[in-house]
Order: sequence, then structure tokens, then C-alpha cells
Amino acid sequence: MKLQNSLDKQLRERARAVIPNGMYGHMSTRLLPDNFPQFFQRAKGAYIWDVDGNRYVDLMCAYGPNLLGYADDAVDAAYAAQMRIADTVTGPSALFVELAEQLVDMISHAAWTMFCKNGADATQIALMLAREHTQRKTVVLARGSYHGSFPWAAGRQAGVTLADKSYQAYCEYDDVASLEEAARFAGDDLAAIFATPFRHDAFRDQALPSIEYAQKAREICDRTGAVLVVDDVRAGFRMARDCSWTKVGVQPDISCWGKCLANGHPLSALMGSEPLRDAATRIYVTGSYWLQSAPMAAAIETLRRVRETDYLEKMQRLGQRLRQGLAERAATAGFGLRQTGPETMPLFLFEDDPDMRQGFFWCAQMLERGCYTHPWHNMFMCAALSEADIDLVLNASEGAFKDLAANRSRLEPNERMSFLGPQRAAAR
Amino acid sequence: MKLQNSLDKQLRERARAVIPNGMYGHMSTRLLPDNFPQFFQRAKGAYIWDVDGNRYVDLMCAYGPNLLGYADDAVDAAYAAQMRIADTVTGPSALFVELAEQLVDMISHAAWTMFCKNGADATQIALMLAREHTQRKTVVLARGSYHGSFPWAAGRQAGVTLADKSYQAYCEYDDVASLEEAARFAGDDLAAIFATPFRHDAFRDQALPSIEYAQKAREICDRTGAVLVVDDVRAGFRMARDCSWTKVGVQPDISCWGKCLANGHPLSALMGSEPLRDAATRIYVTGSYWLQSAPMAAAIETLRRVRETDYLEKMQRLGQRLRQGLAERAATAGFGLRQTGPETMPLFLFEDDPDMRQGFFWCAQMLERGCYTHPWHNMFMCAALSEADIDLVLNASEGAFKDLAANRSRLEPNERMSFLGPQRAAAR
Repeated sequence: MKLQNSLDKQLRERARAVIPNGMYGHMSTRLLPDNFPQFFQRAKGAYIWDVDGNRYVDLMCAYGPNLLGYADDAVDAAYAAQMRIADTVTGPSALFVELAEQLVDMISHAAWTMFCKNGADATQIALMLAREHTQRKTVVLARGSYHGSFPWAAGRQAGVTLADKSYQAYCEYDDVASLEEAARFAGDDLAAIFATPFRHDAFRDQALPSIEYAQKAREICDRTGAVLVVDDVRAGFRMARDCSWTKVGVQPDISCWGKCLANGHPLSALMGSEPLRDAATRIYVTGSYWLQSAPMAAAIETLRRVRETDYLEKMQRLGQRLRQGLAERAATAGFGLRQTGPETMPLFLFEDDPDMRQGFFWCAQMLERGCYTHPWHNMFMCAALSEADIDLVLNASEGAFKDLAANRSRLEPNERMSFLGPQRAAAR
Repeated sequence: MKLQNSLDKQLRERARAVIPNGMYGHMSTRLLPDNFPQFFQRAKGAYIWDVDGNRYVDLMCAYGPNLLGYADDAVDAAYAAQMRIADTVTGPSALFVELAEQLVDMISHAAWTMFCKNGADATQIALMLAREHTQRKTVVLARGSYHGSFPWAAGRQAGVTLADKSYQAYCEYDDVASLEEAARFAGDDLAAIFATPFRHDAFRDQALPSIEYAQKAREICDRTGAVLVVDDVRAGFRMARDCSWTKVGVQPDISCWGKCLANGHPLSALMGSEPLRDAATRIYVTGSYWLQSAPMAAAIETLRRVRETDYLEKMQRLGQRLRQGLAERAATAGFGLRQTGPETMPLFLFEDDPDMRQGFFWCAQMLERGCYTHPWHNMFMCAALSEADIDLVLNASEGAFKDLAANRSRLEPNERMSFLGPQRAAAR
């Protein structure tokens, strides 16, 4: 069994000439198994086809955006219709107001919204807004949490100065004592606490937050006048039809939104509670395409489906089935599989696999069997998945576990994950 | 003559409830004459229709993006076709490589490209890249030049800390001595000189750069190993079919691109010369929608038109006719009109008009006559404009100048522009 990949190879070769490293960012396959394709030619529903024509059921959903499945007919029809009428114009259309009204209706804490393009636009604005509202500077971040790749939030240091990361204090995710300690460190300069809805850092187990952690963040902000920011860019509408922390009974002051809004069309948003509105009128933020109408038309259809269908319960049910089915098959094959995070955003990591050589081998085998899974980044369910697709994944996993069992003792060290280091492995 | 605007008023009222201030960013009408509509319902070619059905020939082109005119049939057909096949997927399509190859072919200095969404993404990456490449920190910026609204480049201070603007030295645009002085100030920490292709700051006359200024910037960078960044986000392909500074014989190391790339569809890009490639592989930058294929399909059709048609010469010819016609009509009516910048990106400012009350009145009159012009931001020609459209604008201007002449002595102070202050007026 060997996937055909000659066209992908040719494109990689051409890309190396005109793109640094041939690819950049989170969609680079540089840290994925060898057989993973870099280029795709088609996407529909829960399926993607690489440029060599290989088809996969896709558990990544473009790293999140396709909540309802690729090329959703109704969403794309709304996009295309609006594009023909008015898209990027000298001002917004009525859809701008309509969409803002709908979001304010749907998101409990929100009194207003601002639209932008990148998820990182929304988190950057949240930072500016918290500082303007409080007239303070220091933000508490959980170490390792992802809030975009702009310098203030960057995980890698290349091109980033220490000044870019001024006025930041760090806690450990879901560690109440460290959160209190970071807030104490910020003292009377505490402007904001940022939180992802759950811990979805790459390369490690995910973790749902305890109610105590979320409540402590809220309580510190209430006591100090700081701003609680929940960064729902990645998790939005995959845990709730509202801000994800409503699941633990906590309302933020600002929430950041992105991938879930327009089913793959480019749109992000910042939503705020009433007390933040005034500061929001004072900051100046803008972008060439932020008021584009076609993605807003797509968002209105997406939100309708979020409100009126059981897309979430369906994803949860299928996610639960997948998790249980994988657990059984892993156990039968003699593997410990750690499955963490919400069932709609699964991550599978193998026990005793510090350099992920087992995870890489297994994902490579899954790929050969028509399933695109990820060895170290959380995956994303979409509403286009069916019971039959889950069957396909589970059946494929049996073969992948079997192959892994047969090869386990012979696996080479995984150089690509060597940066994780032994201390990372021990920390698990 | 009075434009109908009841639907616009209703939408503004609704918007105030769910959007801070009812609008934000560069498309807010807060600093425009009273009769300017905020919301639009349709756009085609060189024309826009506001929500009340009033039609205008649009000299703003959505503040730039619609180089070929709104809703261009071939561009939008390319977009729609690609959207149906594969848009935001778990990896890019072959179009990603094809578009990068075309851009590298077209832009003389460029050996590679990276795609993003906002113009400000490209300038932010340019900053990171220059610092990583040189392992230095200080950047020279021209005071008042716009490179996006992210904190490092922000013009307004709300939500921005001093630390966000660390390691910056300022010169005056097109002032060789001040450029040398800023570079001396940066000393051996000079990482980059940023330049817009011409001075297109809001609220003041535009200025084309002297050859000496551009050459001095190049020479300083050559001597010190710093990186010359030309920010072509706004001006791209409206001065040349290459980086705009090729007009003054100077090649940058990095160029930033945005509005001109995909005729209104969301895409921006960073292009770099060969020596910068290695540093570009070390920085980590990414965004949820950066590798979207549909805007790349739109860009490929846009670039074909840039290469194969006389779109630029046509815009230049019409822009020249407009400039000359306005100058004659202004003189006849007894007004001094300063028309600055490239003819494809005109700006008209009245002499002796420190709070722009004359400019506001004139633009309001132009609007009543079906012409959307801007009192203080550069405008943008598009290739969909015809001789007849220029006739329409020139004819409208005769009436507008006449009305202005009749009302000049009775105009109220323009509170909206009071922030410009008397010193600003004197500086002109």
C-alpha cells in the first residue's frame, strides 16, 4: 500500500523556488509524516483530495474553518450571490449590521461586535482594547497557549524582540495557584487575563478547564477591574452555541472568534460586553477587507445552521463514538492512547512515545487507508461527517494499530520531533 | 437637490446598537460630510449604489482594492469556480505555487513570496523579517506614513504602549537629510528603512519621492546591511506593473502588497529578494485563511490583466484628463486646487482651507451630483472608468465649484477637522 504522490512532489519542488522553505505556517507538512501531501485539489463535505487524486476523510477541516463541511452548498450559494451584488465596496452593506445583531443575540456576554479577517486580528484588538479600557498594561497569558503568530503572542522568537512581549505575566493553564500568582505579579497594572476555552497547545495533551480555574479568572477580573478575554478563535461553536466558557458558567468581557463564523470564508470577529464599548470607540483598527460583504452573507447562513440544526450534538455524538471506538481498538492492539480535549476537537497521543515515532507511524498508516489525522495538533470534527465516515476511520485504525504493533520495536527515532526533548516527555 | 437617505439612517441607528460608534476604521463616515452614505447595496464597474438606491461614480474603489472595477466578470468567475472546487482546505492548492511563480516573474526584485490576508500582515512580517535577517532592531519610518493599524505602526495612541513602538526612528518623507539623520540615530542597530512609494498620508498634500530620497534609502541599506522595505499595499500596480519604486530606479529588498492583487478579494503578500529568503524560513507566521485558493484564482486573472492590458495607461490617461479638467474648472471659478500624487491616485485639497470646510462642501456637492470623491484621503482610479465617467465628474465639478463660490463666505467652521489645528494649516 503506497500512496501515489508524484504531482505533490513536483509542486513541492516548484514551491521551494518561490516560497521560503516551500511552505510556511501551520499548514506546512515539515513536521508531519513523510507521506502527508502538501497540496490539495478538491474538497467536499468531510473529504479532501490531494493533487495526486488520493481521497481522505479529513479530521482537520482546514484546521477548523469548515464547521459544516467543505463547499457547503447553501453557504457557498449565499457567498456567490452576495459577491455578484456587492463585496469589497467603499463601505459595508446592510449585512454588516444584520450579522452583528445576530451575533449579539447569540453570544450571551456580548453587547457589540467588530469584524476583522484573521483570528490574530481579533486577539490583537482584544489586547489593545483591554489596555485602553483599563489604562493599564499587563496581561496574564497561560504559558504555551496560542493566540496567533503576531509578535506579542508569538511562540517562536525569530523576528520578535523582548519589547514586543512587554507587560506579560504567565500562568500554567488550569492551575489556579499560578493564575493567582501571575495576577499578583501584575499587581495594580493588570489589564487582562487571556484564556483559550480549553488547553489546545500543540504537541501535548489537551485539557478542559476546571470550573475553579475559569471562576478564579472571572473573580480576579471582577475584583481588579481587569478584562477577561476568552479566545474562541479555534474552539468557537464546537463546544457551545455561545462562548465556550458558558460550559463552565463563566462569561468573559471580550471574546475572540474566527474559524467557526463563515464555514471557510475569511471572517473573524471580536465581541465585547457593554462596559468595553466606550474604549472600543477610541482605538483605531482597520483592514482593507474587513467589511467585505460576501463572507458576512456566508456567516449569516452558517449561524442559521448553528442555531437551527443539531450540528453540534451530531458532531459530539460522532466524536464520542470515534473516541470510544479508538480506545477499544487501541487497547485490543496493546496500545495506550491518550484522547484529550472535547470530543469535537480530538487529539490522540500514544503513551510512552516521547518523540512521537509511534504517533507518526500510526498517522501515516491512517493516511494510507484514506484517513487524514494529525499526530500532534488537535483535530476538528465537522457536521458533514457521517456514521459511515466514522466506521471508515475506525476500520482503518484497526489496520493501523496492527501495523504499528508489528513495527513498534523497529521504529527509527523521529528526528522531526527531537525538539520536544526529554524533559517534555517527562512532563507528561 | 437632496439625496434620499432614510434607509442609511435606519441602518446607522441599528448599527449604533451593536457596533462601537456604529462603525470603525477607514470606512467610517464620521470624518466625512454629512450627506455621505455609510451603507451600500450594490457595486458594478466604476459605480456604487447606496442602500437608498442613489448611484455614484466611485473614485474610491473601496479604498483601493478594485483595480479593474467592481464585480469584474472574469475575476469573479475565476473566484466562484475555484470556490466550488477547493478554497480553505487542510493545505493549499497548486494555485498557491502558480501565483507565487507569476509574482516572482513580475516583480523585479523578488525571488520569493508569502501570502497573507491584511496589508498589515505583510508589513508586520516585513518588520519581523528585517529584524531576523539583520539580527538588529531599529527601523526608520517616515513620520505620518501609514503601514497599517497594528500597534507597532499605529497612528493613534489608544490601546498602544510605548513598548509597542520600541526601536523606531523617524524621518520626514522625501527629506534626504532627515533620512540620514534617522539612520545615524539607529547607528549599528539599523534593521530596516520602511517607505511608502509616495507620501500618501491622510489630511495633507501627497508627494512623489525624489530620486535622491529613494537612492539615499537604498544606499544607506547597502552600506549598513539594513533592509529596504517598500510598502506597496496601497499603491501597487497603480504606478507600475512592478514595485512602484522601479519608477525612480530603486529596488527594495522586501515589498508589501495588498489591495491590487485580487480585485477586491482578500489577499495580501510579502515579496523578498534572495538574501532575505533564509531569514524568512526562520520566522513563524500564519493565519487561518492565508492559503485560501479562491482569492488566488482571482489574483491570477487580475495579474493576467495587469500584464496583458493597457489598464494602467488607461487609468493614467483618464487621471490626467480629470486633473487637467478640474484645474481649469477650479481656476475659472476662482479656486486654488492642489492636486497631488500620481494621477491614478488623486487628492484634491483647496488652498486657504485649513479646516477643510470648502473641501467638505465641494465633496458634498459632488456627491449630490452622483460623484463619490473624498475630501482628505487619496482616491483611486480603476480600469472600469470611461471617458464618459470623467465627463460626468468634470460636469458635476462645474456645478460644485459654482455652489461653493456662492456659499464660500457663509461656510460654518468644520468641527470634524478641528483636530488638524492651526499649526497643521500653517505647515502647508
